[in-house]
Amino acid sequence: MAYIPLNDELPGIRALFEIRPETAKPLRELANVLLHDSHTLPAGERELIAAYVSAQNDCHYCQSIHGAVAAHHLGGDQQLVESVKKDIEGAAISGKLKALLVIAGKVQQGGKNVLPEDIGRARRQGATDLEIHDTVLIAAAFCMFNRYVDGLDTWSEDDPEAYRERAALLAREGYLSVPT
Amino acid sequence: MAYIPLNDELPGIRALFEIRPETAKPLRELANVLLHDSHTLPAGERELIAAYVSAQNDCHYCQSIHGAVAAHHLGGDQQLVESVKKDIEGAAISGKLKALLVIAGKVQQGGKNVLPEDIGRARRQGATDLEIHDTVLIAAAFCMFNRYVDGLDTWSEDDPEAYRERAALLAREGYLSVPT
Repeated sequence: MAYIPLNDELPGIRALFEIRPETAKPLRELANVLLHDSHTLPAGERELIAAYVSAQNDCHYCQSIHGAVAAHHLGGDQQLVESVKKDIEGAAISGKLKALLVIAGKVQQGGKNVLPEDIGRARRQGATDLEIHDTVLIAAAFCMFNRYVDGLDTWSEDDPEAYRERAALLAREGYLSVPT
Repeated sequence: MAYIPLNDELPGIRALFEIRPETAKPLRELANVLLHDSHTLPAGERELIAAYVSAQNDCHYCQSIHGAVAAHHLGGDQQLVESVKKDIEGAAISGKLKALLVIAGKVQQGGKNVLPEDIGRARRQGATDLEIHDTVLIAAAFCMFNRYVDGLDTWSEDDPEAYRERAALLAREGYLSVPT
């Protein structure tokens, strides 16, 4: 039972979107711009940043759904998602994405943890101003989404399989048009 | 110098809003719904929650501007804002607002820190479902805004006086129509 009355059939943030459409609208729009709209960083990489930060924040719902969306974009490679959560430097991803994930991990701990050398590493790996900006904002936004979902004690499915179908829908349609 | 090129004349999040209007739009809309739209919690109390969380996150810009907006709503009582930042239980505020600020402080540390007894205390003090929901989301949202502002190393004015004029404008007009 969540801390406020919610529709039991909807897990995680979906039940919260249902009861407060006024805040759901900008939250969904923010997720869509950051994760789904066209971008120089592929959607799969942006979803990986979201899943990684959610794992660092120990948010089961967010890391499961965004991990599944990332895996969908990455050709179904759930193992890659798990390897990023465990060890950024050892994962089979680009040097640029590693540098951006390091920045995201610093943001998760607090904005002031990001150091000039973290930004320097990302730039040397070819990251643009927009990519650095959006990495910081994706990480910051998931520090919000994770706290929102867990702070009201919403429920989520344990089984990773349960996220796959909706992840495919979100990967295809984005965060605006999909029904709650 | 911030980590990405920004308009030097705009402090804090204002410079970030200018360079990325696609994310500024939902972020401003979220702030407006949570802090400015009509509500059973007065705007001054919601701004106090925002300022308190920003102080806990050590975000100078956000705690200064939202502290100043809170003070404006509270008849210019900047001392009350400072006393809340230092000691919730000793501040001259209602028992309901104290209970909501305790929840906000738990959310700042992580969503899972909010306990049933924190929610129970707020309910006994008369907090509604919507007030509990919005307190959690305001606290979560400022964990985002604070990380966004500090993670990109934006600048902010030291002098508390510098925030007063814009705070009056934001208190009156909200976060949507005010120019960046």
